[in-house]
Amino acid sequence: MKLTILGCHSATPRWDANPTSQVLEIKGHLFLIDCAEGTQVQLRRFKVKFARIKHIFISHLHGDHFFGLVGLISTFRLLGREADMHVYGPKGIKDAILLQLKVGKSYTNYKLYFHELESDEPQVLFEDDKVTVTTIPLSHRIYTNGFLFKEKPAERGLDVEKARALNVEMSYYRKIKQGSDAITKEGKMIPNAEITFDPPKPKSYAYCSDTEYFPPIVPQIKEATLLYHESTFLHDNHDLAVKTKHSTAKEAAIIAKNANVGTLILGHYSGRYGNYKLFKDEAKTIFENVELAEDGRVFEV
Amino acid sequence: MKLTILGCHSATPRWDANPTSQVLEIKGHLFLIDCAEGTQVQLRRFKVKFARIKHIFISHLHGDHFFGLVGLISTFRLLGREADMHVYGPKGIKDAILLQLKVGKSYTNYKLYFHELESDEPQVLFEDDKVTVTTIPLSHRIYTNGFLFKEKPAERGLDVEKARALNVEMSYYRKIKQGSDAITKEGKMIPNAEITFDPPKPKSYAYCSDTEYFPPIVPQIKEATLLYHESTFLHDNHDLAVKTKHSTAKEAAIIAKNANVGTLILGHYSGRYGNYKLFKDEAKTIFENVELAEDGRVFEV
Repeated sequence: MKLTILGCHSATPRWDANPTSQVLEIKGHLFLIDCAEGTQVQLRRFKVKFARIKHIFISHLHGDHFFGLVGLISTFRLLGREADMHVYGPKGIKDAILLQLKVGKSYTNYKLYFHELESDEPQVLFEDDKVTVTTIPLSHRIYTNGFLFKEKPAERGLDVEKARALNVEMSYYRKIKQGSDAITKEGKMIPNAEITFDPPKPKSYAYCSDTEYFPPIVPQIKEATLLYHESTFLHDNHDLAVKTKHSTAKEAAIIAKNANVGTLILGHYSGRYGNYKLFKDEAKTIFENVELAEDGRVFEV
Repeated sequence: MKLTILGCHSATPRWDANPTSQVLEIKGHLFLIDCAEGTQVQLRRFKVKFARIKHIFISHLHGDHFFGLVGLISTFRLLGREADMHVYGPKGIKDAILLQLKVGKSYTNYKLYFHELESDEPQVLFEDDKVTVTTIPLSHRIYTNGFLFKEKPAERGLDVEKARALNVEMSYYRKIKQGSDAITKEGKMIPNAEITFDPPKPKSYAYCSDTEYFPPIVPQIKEATLLYHESTFLHDNHDLAVKTKHSTAKEAAIIAKNANVGTLILGHYSGRYGNYKLFKDEAKTIFENVELAEDGRVFEV
């Protein structure tokens, strides 16, 4: 699982600071999460093979999370894309994007599907045999979802040497990996646990931005390998966080602690602070494993 | 008159190449011409005092000329802008921009006026005592206008020393500058030409992009100080230019020559050519004063 931060800032794009966009590589998929103005340039800058993106997840319809979407969609057309593209985002996203293409008579050659969201309950948006993507309903000034990307549990590991030594039929291997007990050529039953071992723990990534401090998300993101939680402010501006329905670094850390996640990644910093380290320092008073999102930074698990 | 190129390329924004946007400073105004994705970053990069922009002119509704507009409008709101903003562009631009703000419940605090264009005849869009801005109807795949920015003729220069020596009443000075003959305190008439001189020639800038080779524009842009004319292709790709309704460098130069402009600026280069100099070389076979638009380049007259 590999997360690339394309933009870590809040508000408007600047020469040295891009608003929110990320790319998550998980089980062969390349998922784009949010798409601020300039995202297509960031994808190129950080050498992401972005033709591989087939699913784009938009948290909410503030400009710093989606103004780059129409440009990316157009660029795919100019690059001759043929593969389908799926966009998941709040109700209204389809009309807002398509109207911009329509006024320029610029339609896509590839199939573009919009999946508009309006539920306040978690919804499975994507599922295959290896991964699921589910919404995490958040609480912001407008309708907003985070996203939980989760690997499915892998099959159990088979101790092939032991299976051979015990004379287990090879045709049983598949079922044994799926949890069945083994049977030897002589007809003897071997308990599954004796010739298998636990698969690696499935990895997961919880993306939570933008949101006020919102403890109801904790059960859903419990034990996530990585949690990105917005921290627009430091706690000395807690009143501003409340007013604008954003979070402080301290609040992000409380969520991370209560959800017992592996690593907390902070981001969506307000431009008023010059020094990101202040966010890390504040969060670390609550939760140990804190990292800072920075444009171009890669988190590999 | 000062023209700053913010983006000189065609098609999509890239790390080292921005699509079309320009800023023209003329008689105290700062006019923005087209607004591709990334324009607000380019304005910051080239240190344009962009809060001073009050009028934005959009040639047509292809993404590489307007996808940055909604972001710039939003940024003005975040920066606390209070001054009115006027946007001039093809019919449809208002809905396409406002819908994106509406889905995010992100309205502007300042007054935003859209002036939608649909005429195929030149229209005066802006006029004050020093400058006019007029559309230049172009011929592209969709409805497109160029823009002619033109200083108004200044008053005639008065030879004050001569006027004093001739004992001309000071209260007549104003009228003399406007062309009246002078009258001395003794009542003698002095012909205007004897105590005035020609004002500097009014400067003008003609922006023509995107367009196929379209000679009907020549009379309107005659004698322009500066002409920006798109040259998406070199002439060896003339068939492509015809097909996509763009121009070649040679065609841009023919327009410049027939309009007898001061300087031709080429731009809107297709990404297929590595070397801009090829465009200049081709145009110079037809017309001498050719310059190349480049991101950040400033033309001062």
